Amino acid sequence: MTTPKQSAGKKASAAQQIKELDYDLLPSLVGYQLRLTQLAYFYDFAKSVEDPTISPGRFGVLVLIGANPGLTQSRLALATQLDRSTMVAVIDLLEARELVERRAAPKDRRSNALWLTEKGKKLLRSMKQRVIAHEQRLSSAIGPEKSAELIAMLERLRACMMAAEE
Amino acid sequence: MTTPKQSAGKKASAAQQIKELDYDLLPSLVGYQLRLTQLAYFYDFAKSVEDPTISPGRFGVLVLIGANPGLTQSRLALATQLDRSTMVAVIDLLEARELVERRAAPKDRRSNALWLTEKGKKLLRSMKQRVIAHEQRLSSAIGPEKSAELIAMLERLRACMMAAEE
Repeated sequence: MTTPKQSAGKKASAAQQIKELDYDLLPSLVGYQLRLTQLAYFYDFAKSVEDPTISPGRFGVLVLIGANPGLTQSRLALATQLDRSTMVAVIDLLEARELVERRAAPKDRRSNALWLTEKGKKLLRSMKQRVIAHEQRLSSAIGPEKSAELIAMLERLRACMMAAEE
Repeated sequence: MTTPKQSAGKKASAAQQIKELDYDLLPSLVGYQLRLTQLAYFYDFAKSVEDPTISPGRFGVLVLIGANPGLTQSRLALATQLDRSTMVAVIDLLEARELVERRAAPKDRRSNALWLTEKGKKLLRSMKQRVIAHEQRLSSAIGPEKSAELIAMLERLRACMMAAEE
């Protein structure tokens, strides 16, 4: 077992070891900065929502099912850009926690349609409040108008990358 | 087999299906926007560097080894925030492609030290040029001064999230 002091010492030396590295062109790349920020967001989100099984991606799945009751799994997979096996695993987990229900889709019996349970609706309501509070904390770090500008820039970047795809 | 026309039709209807969904609060969340942009970046990067086995993360690993010859695997894992098993799998792949060499670290025999091979150095040089060209294309989409501002905002967000961690 390590004492808090030891692990603080270890942490400091790990941080030191990373700082001393030569990162070459990486910090100047938007892609590298996006990746680091998304990683930090992932951990910060987990702490803010206080439910370690609900990652940002799974929260997104709950939001989409909540806002589109009866959404099919295949459409959800398209919207979230998750591959089919990841999608199925996420729904299995949310179903095991009794947050989501799967039923055969009325119009397409090959695809399952998804609904939130009462428990799922309740959890989503309280998570949304925490996520909004989290978002406000982040936006106050860069200024609320800057936050809108950041989102606009990210959207422009995506439009540029998607245009290149066609 | 689907003809190009059929698959274009399928793609359009998939895009349509996604557009019609209600995304609720998701588009207003910085975290959601970061995730979508990073995903788009990931695919766009693959196309730009024309080497499907070298993802942005693996490119980062090559850059770090190139700039810090003799870097240990454990320090590299810290710097990239990859867990140990992912790290080992990445190095295995780069070693199998004869881009990276592992040798016992002189100061710490429990950890492997990493070097680029001549082939690795050559690949990295040509990849860096493509990555810089890719980056310039993205930065021209939002304006070069905006690109610096975007990086500064992402850094400020990370600082805010890391401060909360302590």
